[in-house]
Amino acid sequence: MANGQPLRNPEQPERIRHLKDGASRAGAVFQAPRDHGRGPIAAVHSPEYLTFLENIHARWKRIEGASDEVIPNIHPDSRGANYPKSAVGQAGYHQADTACPIAEGTWEAAYWSAQTALEGADLLLGGERAAYSLCRPPGHHAFADLAGGFCFLNNSAIAADYLRQQGLKPAILDVDVHHGNGTQGIFYKRNDVLTISLHADPDRFYPFFWGSAQERGEGLGEGYNLNLPLPRGTGDDDYLAVLKTALARVRNFGADVVVIALGLDSHENDPLQGLSITTPGFARLGAAISTLGVPTLLVQEGGYLSDDLGNNIENFLTGFEGG
Amino acid sequence: MANGQPLRNPEQPERIRHLKDGASRAGAVFQAPRDHGRGPIAAVHSPEYLTFLENIHARWKRIEGASDEVIPNIHPDSRGANYPKSAVGQAGYHQADTACPIAEGTWEAAYWSAQTALEGADLLLGGERAAYSLCRPPGHHAFADLAGGFCFLNNSAIAADYLRQQGLKPAILDVDVHHGNGTQGIFYKRNDVLTISLHADPDRFYPFFWGSAQERGEGLGEGYNLNLPLPRGTGDDDYLAVLKTALARVRNFGADVVVIALGLDSHENDPLQGLSITTPGFARLGAAISTLGVPTLLVQEGGYLSDDLGNNIENFLTGFEGG
Ligand SMILES: [Zn+2]
Ligand SMILES: [Zn+2]
Repeated sequence: MANGQPLRNPEQPERIRHLKDGASRAGAVFQAPRDHGRGPIAAVHSPEYLTFLENIHARWKRIEGASDEVIPNIHPDSRGANYPKSAVGQAGYHQADTACPIAEGTWEAAYWSAQTALEGADLLLGGERAAYSLCRPPGHHAFADLAGGFCFLNNSAIAADYLRQQGLKPAILDVDVHHGNGTQGIFYKRNDVLTISLHADPDRFYPFFWGSAQERGEGLGEGYNLNLPLPRGTGDDDYLAVLKTALARVRNFGADVVVIALGLDSHENDPLQGLSITTPGFARLGAAISTLGVPTLLVQEGGYLSDDLGNNIENFLTGFEGG
Repeated sequence: MANGQPLRNPEQPERIRHLKDGASRAGAVFQAPRDHGRGPIAAVHSPEYLTFLENIHARWKRIEGASDEVIPNIHPDSRGANYPKSAVGQAGYHQADTACPIAEGTWEAAYWSAQTALEGADLLLGGERAAYSLCRPPGHHAFADLAGGFCFLNNSAIAADYLRQQGLKPAILDVDVHHGNGTQGIFYKRNDVLTISLHADPDRFYPFFWGSAQERGEGLGEGYNLNLPLPRGTGDDDYLAVLKTALARVRNFGADVVVIALGLDSHENDPLQGLSITTPGFARLGAAISTLGVPTLLVQEGGYLSDDLGNNIENFLTGFEGG
C-alpha cells in the first residue's frame, strides 16, 4: 500500500499524526505528492471558483474592519443568480456555510490536498491494488463552485475524474458520516461516474439540504446517484447490511476502479454522534469494500481528533488488506 | 391622505417617530390598522414559511447554547433542495443572510407591518387618492419563502396582490436604494403585477445576487420585471431621468393602481452611501410619481435614522401632493 500526504498542512497537525501513525501500523508507507498542476482540478471546479479561492483572502483583508478569515453573510437563492463583483457578495456565492472560513494558507493547503488524491490515483494507474491519500483539508462537501464544511476542493471527485480521463470507469463510495453533497453535485447530471453516499439522515444532520434518498441524479445522471441515509445511531450490523446495497450497485455499474471517500466520523465516540460504528466495525467495513476486487483509492475525509482515530484507520486498512 | 401604523414595534421607535413627525408636517393623519387576518399574507408567502416565522424562535431557544436570535449558518444552493426538519437547517433555508435575525417579537411585528400595508390598500379601495403605510419592519427583501435584509413579510407585495384580488391591475415601483429582490422573486413568473426597481448597482451593493438589468422575468412573467441599476452616487437629475423610463413602463402596463416601495435610504447623507438624492430631490421624486394619476399606496421600506429622515418623507409627500 502506498500513500500520499500534503506537503503543507496548517490545520490540526495532531489529527494527521494520529492518522499517519495508525496507517503506518497497518503497513502503509508514506510519500509526498508530486505536482499535477491545475488541469485535473479545473476539470472539476470552475475557473471562476478557483480564482475566488486563490485571491479572496487578500481582497477581503483590504475591507475596512474585515475579519481575519473570509466568512460569508449573505447567500444567493440559486446558482443562476447575479454574480457580483464585491468580495462580500462573492464570498456568499462560493461559501455555503460559516464552517469553511478562508484563511491566508487555505488555497495552498487545498491545492496540495488535491495533489495528494491525484498522487494516489497515479499509484493505482501504476498497478497498485490500493492507495491511501491522507488529504487535509477534506473535500466531499465542495461542489464545482461552492465550498462548505471545511472543504474547498473535492479531492475524491478530482481523483475520480482524473481516473475517468485515463479511460477507467470510476465509482465513488462515500462512507463519511455526512452526506457527500459536493461530490453528488459535481456528477449529478453525468452518467460516467457513479456516486453513492451512506450517511446520517440529513433531516436533522449536516449538510441538511442534500442527502435524501429521492436525490437520484438528473438528466443523463438519473439513476447514477444513490443516497442511503441512515437513522442516527446506526451500528455495525445495520450499517454493513446497507453497505451491501451500495456494493451491489457499484458492481452493476461495472466500475473498474473505486474511490472511497473515507470519513471516520461515523465512529461511536465521534463528537458529532451521527452513527455508531465501532473500531472493530471499521475492519469489517474495510473487508467488505475490499470484496469489490478492483483498484481502490482511499481518500481521507472527516474524522475528528480522538484517541480512537489512529485505531480506526488502522482497523479499516487491516480489514481491507485481509478482505 | 391617510396612514397606517403598526400597533407594536419593538425596533427603532426613534426612526418611526421621525417618519411620523415628517409625514404629519406634510398633512398626514395617522390611524392604526385593522386585522385583515392571514389570508392576504398567505396569498404571497408559503404556509411552510409562515409556520417557520411564527415558531422558529421558540424552537431555536430549546437548542443548547443557542443565540438569543435565530441567525442562519448554512444555506442550500437552490430552493429545490431537501427541506430539513432541523431548526438550524430550516433557518438556513428561510433566511438568506445574517441581517434578518428572528427575535421573540419578530412574527408579531412583521404581521402588523403587513396589516399596515393592507390598511393602506383598503383606503385606496375606499376612494382615497393615496395612502402612506408606515410599515416596520420593511418588506421588499422578503421572498415567498425567504427572509433577508431586515425583511420578513413583503408588505408591498402583499398589498399589491390584495389589490389585484379586488380586480385592480397593480404595478410596484421600488425606489429604495436597494434592489427589491423579494418583490421581484414573488412576481417573477407572473404577468398580473408589474415590478420595477431603481437601485444602486448590486455588483458592489446589497443584495448583490439580484437586481441586474438582465433579470426581466421568466415564463409568463418575461418582460414584466424591470431593473434599473444606477451607478453609486447618482444624484437627482440623473435619477429623475431614469425614473421617467420607469413611469412610462407603468403607463404602458396600464396599471390602475401603483404601490411605491418607498425607501428613503437613497438620500445623499444615508450611511450606506449608495445614491445621492437630496432632500429637495425627494419632492421632485414625489411629484414625478404623482403624474401617473392613479391611486397610489406608499409603503415605507428602508431609510435609516438621521436628522434628514423626517424632512425627506415630508418633502416626498409634499411633492407628491403638489405634483
Ligand atoms: Zn464528515
Ligand atoms: Zn434599503
